[in-house]
Amino acid sequence: MRCAISMTTFLAIDWGTTNRRVYHIGNGEVIATHRDNQGVKTLSSDDYNRLITADRARFGDYPVLIAGMAGSTIGWRDVPYVAAPASLSDLAQGTYEVADRVAIVPGVSYHDDHRSDVMRGEEVQLLGAVADRTVKPDSLLCQPGTHCKWAIISDGKIAKFTTSMTGELFALLRTDSVLSAFLTADVTPGAAFKRGLAEGAKGDLAASLFSIRAASVLGHMPSHDAASFCSGVLLGSDVAARLSDHGDEVITILADAPLRELYRTAIETLGGTAAVVDSQQAFVAGITAIKDLWK
Amino acid sequence: MRCAISMTTFLAIDWGTTNRRVYHIGNGEVIATHRDNQGVKTLSSDDYNRLITADRARFGDYPVLIAGMAGSTIGWRDVPYVAAPASLSDLAQGTYEVADRVAIVPGVSYHDDHRSDVMRGEEVQLLGAVADRTVKPDSLLCQPGTHCKWAIISDGKIAKFTTSMTGELFALLRTDSVLSAFLTADVTPGAAFKRGLAEGAKGDLAASLFSIRAASVLGHMPSHDAASFCSGVLLGSDVAARLSDHGDEVITILADAPLRELYRTAIETLGGTAAVVDSQQAFVAGITAIKDLWK
Repeated sequence: MRCAISMTTFLAIDWGTTNRRVYHIGNGEVIATHRDNQGVKTLSSDDYNRLITADRARFGDYPVLIAGMAGSTIGWRDVPYVAAPASLSDLAQGTYEVADRVAIVPGVSYHDDHRSDVMRGEEVQLLGAVADRTVKPDSLLCQPGTHCKWAIISDGKIAKFTTSMTGELFALLRTDSVLSAFLTADVTPGAAFKRGLAEGAKGDLAASLFSIRAASVLGHMPSHDAASFCSGVLLGSDVAARLSDHGDEVITILADAPLRELYRTAIETLGGTAAVVDSQQAFVAGITAIKDLWK
Repeated sequence: MRCAISMTTFLAIDWGTTNRRVYHIGNGEVIATHRDNQGVKTLSSDDYNRLITADRARFGDYPVLIAGMAGSTIGWRDVPYVAAPASLSDLAQGTYEVADRVAIVPGVSYHDDHRSDVMRGEEVQLLGAVADRTVKPDSLLCQPGTHCKWAIISDGKIAKFTTSMTGELFALLRTDSVLSAFLTADVTPGAAFKRGLAEGAKGDLAASLFSIRAASVLGHMPSHDAASFCSGVLLGSDVAARLSDHGDEVITILADAPLRELYRTAIETLGGTAAVVDSQQAFVAGITAIKDLWK
């Protein structure tokens, strides 16, 4: 495990599908940040150079290290995945130099006889939390989001992981389903959410979800409860499946509020033990470690 | 149980969300049918009278009995549900006369301490299959569709039922999800579908679905397999949940091909026993029985 303090100054970009976040980092600390909605979804290849020129004008003419969907088929360059088990050193070796002093960190893939999985961007946070000793080199990490990652860290490497599209399913149901009209309130980790967790833990998702429409139409579910119950069903199904394999381990959550509190409630309600970590700090630690190994 | 042959002539309409089917029925037999896309989704209240006038011009000036979403909050009139256990006689008593010699059959609701459920239209088919002695008065019926119904028929009544939104989830995933680009082929009940069934039976839906993207991106799932595997995951989750409660009973499927063959394959692959019934014949038997009890 490495945890030396970096002496370099550079720009790190967490470049997602719909947003990006730029960090000006020096001596392992964040000097300044910038956030915008220039995610890869709507960009052409010319836009990347233009945006990086603007970032350098903003922060200084430093090397740039990029993680996330910029390295995907829908991004700037399709950077090949590093196969799990994957360490920070593996990620550094797999970086792809896409322009002058600009490199993209690869994602991580997993494949066995039963299942395949992929991640892009999350690997930096996951291994960053290990690099700065926030979590142990043998840990179980949960990274909520549109596609929630559950990663087994073994000997400081990403050994295996499972992605569940919990957040995306919720968004699909909320936007364009028979449940849409009922899913208007904010999601909170209260009583309705906990009832949803118990329902979701049954592992009968498609039926549990329809019951929201039925209970709403029949007047058995108040309109302010439906969204929290629905979120509870989705997280309950996800968390129960993970606890069935890892019920006796502490699960460390890397997320900002309110997702962090929803997952903490889900894990603890269904009998697990949760800890929480600052996901932004983990990203900075991870990308700094990769920068030091790459330069 | 009743099974006398009806002597009446009338028009029956199975009026759904996106389509409707009109049957000209005499002496319990279908004389002629008409199908169009005038589902309730885009109709205003004036349209209903206009369409029925056109139906009568087409087939004759007969009484009209309507089942389905025309009796819902998004239809012509919101006809109150009949609470389960519900018989054909209960449905006949709950019909709502909405215009001159035009009535709407109510849907059926279910509610206990754990779960709520509703149906509109399916009740006619389910009890019709009992009325014409296609299935026994104590049966387990499966009616696939956008919202798949699993109904326990007890003493000739709909005693309890579970709706799973399997078909709608598949449509949402196919249309507007991270999986959309991979779900382009037709669904067939072959090897990929059966692998999906086994995966879905684990009850870990949100993770099983994401694995389709990962396996496709990594080249482990051919493009022609992804849609069948995805459908298998959804049906496998649904069928496995039902078999855990009713594994030793014959499940009778009311559907047209190809849905009938997908559900038959799912039930048999996961260890159940399936029989099939002509769903249109069941609708005609059910609506004729209600007509005789109503007039």
